Parts: sequence; structure tokens; C-alpha cells
Amino acid sequence: MRVLGVDPGLTRCGLGVVDGGSGRTVRCVDVDVVRTPVDVTVAERLLELSNAVEKWLDRHKPQAVAVERVFSQHNVRTVMGTAQAGGVVALVAARRGLPVAFHTPSEVKAAVTGSGRADKKQVGTMVTRLLDLEAMPSPADAADALALAICHLWREPMRARLAEAEARAKELARAHKARLAAATKARQAANPAGNGGRPGVTAATNPKGKRG
Amino acid sequence: MRVLGVDPGLTRCGLGVVDGGSGRTVRCVDVDVVRTPVDVTVAERLLELSNAVEKWLDRHKPQAVAVERVFSQHNVRTVMGTAQAGGVVALVAARRGLPVAFHTPSEVKAAVTGSGRADKKQVGTMVTRLLDLEAMPSPADAADALALAICHLWREPMRARLAEAEARAKELARAHKARLAAATKARQAANPAGNGGRPGVTAATNPKGKRG
Repeated sequence: MRVLGVDPGLTRCGLGVVDGGSGRTVRCVDVDVVRTPVDVTVAERLLELSNAVEKWLDRHKPQAVAVERVFSQHNVRTVMGTAQAGGVVALVAARRGLPVAFHTPSEVKAAVTGSGRADKKQVGTMVTRLLDLEAMPSPADAADALALAICHLWREPMRARLAEAEARAKELARAHKARLAAATKARQAANPAGNGGRPGVTAATNPKGKRG
Repeated sequence: MRVLGVDPGLTRCGLGVVDGGSGRTVRCVDVDVVRTPVDVTVAERLLELSNAVEKWLDRHKPQAVAVERVFSQHNVRTVMGTAQAGGVVALVAARRGLPVAFHTPSEVKAAVTGSGRADKKQVGTMVTRLLDLEAMPSPADAADALALAICHLWREPMRARLAEAEARAKELARAHKARLAAATKARQAANPAGNGGRPGVTAATNPKGKRG
């Protein structure tokens, strides 16, 4: 599976394409950082970003897009721009029918370093090692985009298996309920008195509070 | 001028089209609230929202789009969805070459009620009165979208005049500087000694600290 990881932003947007092989093997296909000019309007910056993402989707044809889920942390202005950029990336992918997943920074850190509290440098180091790169991708947004793609490749099969198991459990519960309802109905048909077919159990022979 | 006001959101997105006439007269063209299903992914919701906005732009052909500028206030999750929705609306408009402006909630409230701290009901009441509507638009997102459009219609001429004045001031400053540079150059050409053409003023005749 090929995944485009996106660390969204208006000033710098990290884009990284990673191929997942058998087991946990991963291969870097392309990585870069898209910048949009600061002297144009937000709408024009979003347009430039969406055009860049469209080009990457055309060029690399990923099967899924993984975007960093933004949290309201430090600078409110920056966070809003980041959320807008993330929304635009998700829209561009959804228009092509591609699945889009959002992963939190701590999910990404935990996936590539084993710790949800790893710093930028640790993430960069692990991404460089995992993808067998000659140098650490720079700036950090580029490394983060690759980490997002890796995170998605490794988490998605687990998530899919979990969803499948949940669906199976639900189906089993439904089938069980249906069998139960059918059995009750059959008993009631055989014994219309209404005690469900159980012999000798009525309100009179087993009053509340008296057992045995 | 016709403006589409947008109160962005994934659960409810207010859309309101207002025509501005001479002075401060305004007329409601259309208003509605777009809802996207909660049981699909964020990317699919953004896609549905963008399709709805595209339809409104096709139908009403506004000359500008005014979007509420989101601030990180209460629920972080909601705010992020709102920012993503706002980014998508801005992108859709920018793709058509339409100008997009973001207005803060207090700018909108101040424009329609005179107070930046007005509550939802006051905004709704004023929007109903200003647009001469039979009933207050409901839910509040619908009224907010109309208020955004009105705010844009009334603020935009001021903003444009201000920008024009600033550009004129900049041009005057530039011309003044150019004249000054030309005058200095002319003096230097007439008197290559380097005292700028002022008679009798040299480092020797006017040493630092001694005047007159």
C-alpha cells in the first residue's frame, strides 16, 4: 500500500509518500515541503496548497492519505491556519474517493519511536533509520509527513482488523438474538398459555421471595 | 454587490446571500443551513459541504464570500471541524477567483447590532429587522450567515477606502524619497567635494561638540 502523509500548514506543509511492504518494511518514495507566500490572502494560500497536493496525488497515486490531527495548543492563529490546511487536503483526497485518516501527533510519535512523547529530533532520527535515508529529512515538517505515512501503514491493518472483529461480534450477537426470538416464538406456538413452554413454572407456584 | 455569508461548521453550516443596495440598504436573497451526516468520515463531510457551497455559488453568483473567522474557544474538537469547514469554503471560492474575507464574531456583532458583545438573539433580531424578514431565521447559524454577509457589505467599502489611502500615502512617501535622492545627487554633481553643496560646512569648520 502507498500512503501520502501530510503535516498540514500554510507556511510549510510537509508531504511524504511511503510504500509499505510485507511486515513492517517501509520505503520512501518522495518527500518535500510546500510553502505558500505570506503576502497573499488565506484563500489564495489554500488554493496554492490544494494545487500542490493535487499534483502529488497525480504523480504518486497513493491509496490513502494520512493527515495530522491538529490540536489547539500554542498559537491560535497558526492552529487555525493548520486546521484549514488540513481540511483542504482532506477535501482534495475525498474528491478523488481516497480514504483520509487523521492521526494525532502522539499516535504518530508512538508508532515510529515507541513513545508518544518523543521530540522532533527523535522522530526525525527514527524516520531516517526506518526508511534507510542518507540524511534526516529537513525541515521537521518533511520528517513528520513521512512519520504520518508510516504511522498510517502500521496502524491501518490493526484498525481494519479491529473493525472486522467488531463487525463479526455484532453479526454473532444479531444471529443469537434472532435464534432466541425464533425459539421463544416456537415455544409460544406449542404452548399458547404463555409460560414460554417451561413446565410447572407459574406465578402461583413460584411467588416472589420464596424459592425451593 | 452580492455577498455569500458563511457560518462554517460540519454539523450545521449557515449560508446566507445578501444584496447590498445604495447606502446601507440590504436585501436577503436566500438563507439556509447545510447539515452533513455525523456517521461518515470528516473528509466525506467536508466533501458534502463543498458540494453544497458549489451549488450555492452556481445558483446565486455572489461577487464575494465572507466567512466567520474561528477562534479557539470552547470545545477543541468542534473548533477544529469549524476551521476545516471554513478552509474548505475559502478554497471553493478561491478556485472560482472570488475574493474571500474572514470576519471575527465580534466584528460581525458590532456591524449589525452596534456592540461586539451582542448575544445570538440580539444578532437574530437585528438581522430580521435589517433585512425586513417575516420571522427570525432559525437556527442561529442561518441568522449568523446573513449577519456575516451584511457585515462584509458594510465593512468592505471602508476597508477598500483605507487600503486605497494607505497605498496613496505609500506612493507619496516613495515619490518624496525619490525627489530627495535626486536633489542630493544633483548637489553632489555640482559640488563633488562631498559636503552636499552646503557652503562652508566641513568636518574641520564644524567639529563635533562645537557649534556656532
